[in-house]
Amino acid sequence: MAVFSSSNFEAVFSFERSQFLSRPPSSLSLRFFSVSIAADNRNRNHRLRHSSSSSKLYNPTFACRASCDSHETDSSHRKDDDSSVHGLSKKIVGVLGGGQLGRMLCQAASKMAIKVMVLDPSENCPASALAYDHMVGSFDDSATVEEFAKRCGVLTVETEHVDVATLEKLEQQGIDCEPKASTIRIIQDKYLQKVHFSRYGIPLPEFMEINNLEETKRAGELYGYPLMIKSKRLAYDGRGNAVAKSEGELSSAIDVLGGFGHGLYVEKWAPFIKELAVIVARGRDNSILCYPVVETIHKENICHMVKAPVDVPWRIRKLANDVAYKAISSLEGAGVFAVELFLTRDGQILLNEVAPRPHNSGHHTIESCYTSQFEQHLRAVVGLPLGDPSMKTPAAIMYNLLGEDEGEPGFKVAHQLIARALEIPGATAHWYDKTEMRRQRKMGHVTLVGPSVGVLEARLKSMLREEGYENLNEAAPRVGIVMGSDSDLPVMKDAARILNMFGVSTEVRIVSAHRTPELMYSYASSARERGIQVIIAGAGGAAHLPG
Amino acid sequence: MAVFSSSNFEAVFSFERSQFLSRPPSSLSLRFFSVSIAADNRNRNHRLRHSSSSSKLYNPTFACRASCDSHETDSSHRKDDDSSVHGLSKKIVGVLGGGQLGRMLCQAASKMAIKVMVLDPSENCPASALAYDHMVGSFDDSATVEEFAKRCGVLTVETEHVDVATLEKLEQQGIDCEPKASTIRIIQDKYLQKVHFSRYGIPLPEFMEINNLEETKRAGELYGYPLMIKSKRLAYDGRGNAVAKSEGELSSAIDVLGGFGHGLYVEKWAPFIKELAVIVARGRDNSILCYPVVETIHKENICHMVKAPVDVPWRIRKLANDVAYKAISSLEGAGVFAVELFLTRDGQILLNEVAPRPHNSGHHTIESCYTSQFEQHLRAVVGLPLGDPSMKTPAAIMYNLLGEDEGEPGFKVAHQLIARALEIPGATAHWYDKTEMRRQRKMGHVTLVGPSVGVLEARLKSMLREEGYENLNEAAPRVGIVMGSDSDLPVMKDAARILNMFGVSTEVRIVSAHRTPELMYSYASSARERGIQVIIAGAGGAAHLPG
Repeated sequence: MAVFSSSNFEAVFSFERSQFLSRPPSSLSLRFFSVSIAADNRNRNHRLRHSSSSSKLYNPTFACRASCDSHETDSSHRKDDDSSVHGLSKKIVGVLGGGQLGRMLCQAASKMAIKVMVLDPSENCPASALAYDHMVGSFDDSATVEEFAKRCGVLTVETEHVDVATLEKLEQQGIDCEPKASTIRIIQDKYLQKVHFSRYGIPLPEFMEINNLEETKRAGELYGYPLMIKSKRLAYDGRGNAVAKSEGELSSAIDVLGGFGHGLYVEKWAPFIKELAVIVARGRDNSILCYPVVETIHKENICHMVKAPVDVPWRIRKLANDVAYKAISSLEGAGVFAVELFLTRDGQILLNEVAPRPHNSGHHTIESCYTSQFEQHLRAVVGLPLGDPSMKTPAAIMYNLLGEDEGEPGFKVAHQLIARALEIPGATAHWYDKTEMRRQRKMGHVTLVGPSVGVLEARLKSMLREEGYENLNEAAPRVGIVMGSDSDLPVMKDAARILNMFGVSTEVRIVSAHRTPELMYSYASSARERGIQVIIAGAGGAAHLPG
Repeated sequence: MAVFSSSNFEAVFSFERSQFLSRPPSSLSLRFFSVSIAADNRNRNHRLRHSSSSSKLYNPTFACRASCDSHETDSSHRKDDDSSVHGLSKKIVGVLGGGQLGRMLCQAASKMAIKVMVLDPSENCPASALAYDHMVGSFDDSATVEEFAKRCGVLTVETEHVDVATLEKLEQQGIDCEPKASTIRIIQDKYLQKVHFSRYGIPLPEFMEINNLEETKRAGELYGYPLMIKSKRLAYDGRGNAVAKSEGELSSAIDVLGGFGHGLYVEKWAPFIKELAVIVARGRDNSILCYPVVETIHKENICHMVKAPVDVPWRIRKLANDVAYKAISSLEGAGVFAVELFLTRDGQILLNEVAPRPHNSGHHTIESCYTSQFEQHLRAVVGLPLGDPSMKTPAAIMYNLLGEDEGEPGFKVAHQLIARALEIPGATAHWYDKTEMRRQRKMGHVTLVGPSVGVLEARLKSMLREEGYENLNEAAPRVGIVMGSDSDLPVMKDAARILNMFGVSTEVRIVSAHRTPELMYSYASSARERGIQVIIAGAGGAAHLPG
């Protein structure tokens, strides 16, 4: 068939910005789009598909249309000049990779009418149906990437595992890559990444390159066991990691990782109590904004759940934020970055690794933040001002829909979960439309937003049908009624009665600040986690408020 | 080119629901998707477009690809069986119309991987780039609509101005139309709509059919002037309305509407103080949920701005909700409906008109509600449970980007506005990607979400550069510091000083509840509107809280 031109993209759009957007700027010194508009075709030649096997639906009008199509020549189809680019940016954003991240970038782009092209080897990749255009090809192949890049106003990635030498060559030719090839080179080699961040004084678990078993044993003596052994490259979702619990396990761990030939290093075991993550956005003007710190929960090394915001003291959040900010400041280029962190028992924050792109730990931002990580990435790479990264709902939980089985049985389990998610208030289901179901594959996710992480945990448990959570009302008492003595009960029980009349679930406890101070303390400190939104506290004769 | 089959859609999906979702169901009796999966092709044949005019980009690999494509036959391309439908519903949703409403339906559908096909005469209609498929054709043409309907699992509309006789015929053939053809027949004739709703006891402005000038004059005597004269059909965005201020203006008003031939009626002038709207969703199980009542502000009869929630007493909101609920209960079929209402000076709610589809007054729901009106419409028509319609942010303002000029100058004005919107915290810009700019045409919209309508109004004024709002901080004092006498000032001024240190804008007022009770009252009652979020009230020696 005829395939048409959309070349000569003029990158005339320019937009600079110096304001820090998450606070109202003290004065709105605004700069405008450059509005010289280049001609561009946006015809995607949508046609109704025909079934040659269902002749009863056959319609001469459309058949004619189809038959005309199949004989058309290039020239008959050229419509370069009949429409113009008028979205929020003239730049066509080229994305290396068309998985779920590319798909969600396309969704964010469609609001702003920004055109996204993806390069992905799979014809039915998740981003394909939503992209302005999809080039079927490998983002590992130099000629393909070069060809693709020429058609885009700016080149970005949804994976760091791309051919970085080509990106460097393209940058020399003047192609705009965001983030920069230098950043992707540092990040795609986990050892290089650690060397880089340690140079910038970012706190990290101790690490060391290993080239043979002798060196590995020495590392084991130095760092102790368990010892984490990692591949330098092509490692994600736990792939490329192996743990040796003792010196005897070193050889087999190294074998699992394919031997020393591919490049290995070891990390001192980080005794973390929580894993945290921070999405950091940087604009083309180098302004940097951080999203709220979240907790990530992994299962078999794959992200399983994200809680936003993380429930840690303010000091820890501040520290996590500072480490993330500092780490991203050391890299070049615009876009969003994910900084994965360990919180250790002694309250340290250590950097685990960085991704130079939107990230699973930021999916919740679609529903919970003023600007999603995907819109933010697009704003950043095309040069629009960054949006407000703060949360517009008090809390969010993101739950990954991972393949639990191969093929149809796997689809069945996922659909049952989604059916339950659709019954949960404040839950949004995302399905990536992957044609193949595999065990542990990321097939979609569900985001719950609501008044507190505690309430959302109860809703999630109900969705997952975890024990004791069959009934949402039972699951999440929302009002706690506490009193110092059961002598208060005759008065206080009416509060429970009236709340129950309105269908508000309650829990009633006798907790005395004088006689059971520890119980009082643990009650109060766990209330939010357990989903309590209001506490009605009845004191005795003296009207002191029970702190 | 080759055009491929995607017929034989099996509508095997079934999902019933009896729970009222906006409250936690007392027990989660869940029903699952029917998971028998029919084969379906989802290949959209994305290909990189080529520029024959830019030979420097010419690449043999891709040229080959293009050239292969143009010689391909049907059979070489048939891939019917290599992928399956696995989205949240197997039903393909067919939408008559592919404007901005269709576009936003596609955006909502993409999250859930629900396939939306649109029928629209314009090849570059806003929904085209995002739809699973776009059939280029008229939704007024019977044969076209029939052909289209056969390819969909359920048929719905983004406009009520469709060929309803064909829909009725299709329903008799067993095609699933949501909402029902009967509903669209009632709504597309505004006079019939009013007759229908008055039969159901819905409060309406008085109205009367007119067939000649004599009858019109009698109506004028009965209802008084100004008199509203309306076309029965094809009336929207103020088209089809004419106002006669006196009997002398009747003839010219009737001429403006094209004479009596097209069907006219008159309405008694409704002395409204506000226009309100309620989006109402009905599921296939007839469960009905109402979105929060909003205020709509029209300019030259076109929706200009929406404020959510509306600032009226609770009694009025309840009344508006009840009227909307009752109106939609009288119609048949699933989907979302918009109910436009008048609030009169004497506190009455009168129904203005109903739209059987997503509506401009519900665009804010994308950013401000747990379930957007577009996701809700899809859930409703495919038979998924309705989502929670309540707001997840305290307030929202939707501002329409209407064409202010023809062609490029119009684009320039719109882009300047969007550039400013991108600097506003909590603002999201939507651009519909219409290729042609016309005066008063809906080209996009901006939604602001935030802590109160007052704060958002200040931000909007800043975005619009309205007088006195050059500076956001000046525009929106967020903390009001009031005291009974200037003798309190030495103490209270430190509050202002510290807030200013943190960049929080304040206003300081001397307002005595004893000496200036009316000033106190007006201060308090206007505070929220003006964006005040916190009031620090310093009283004199007695520590009474100044109510």
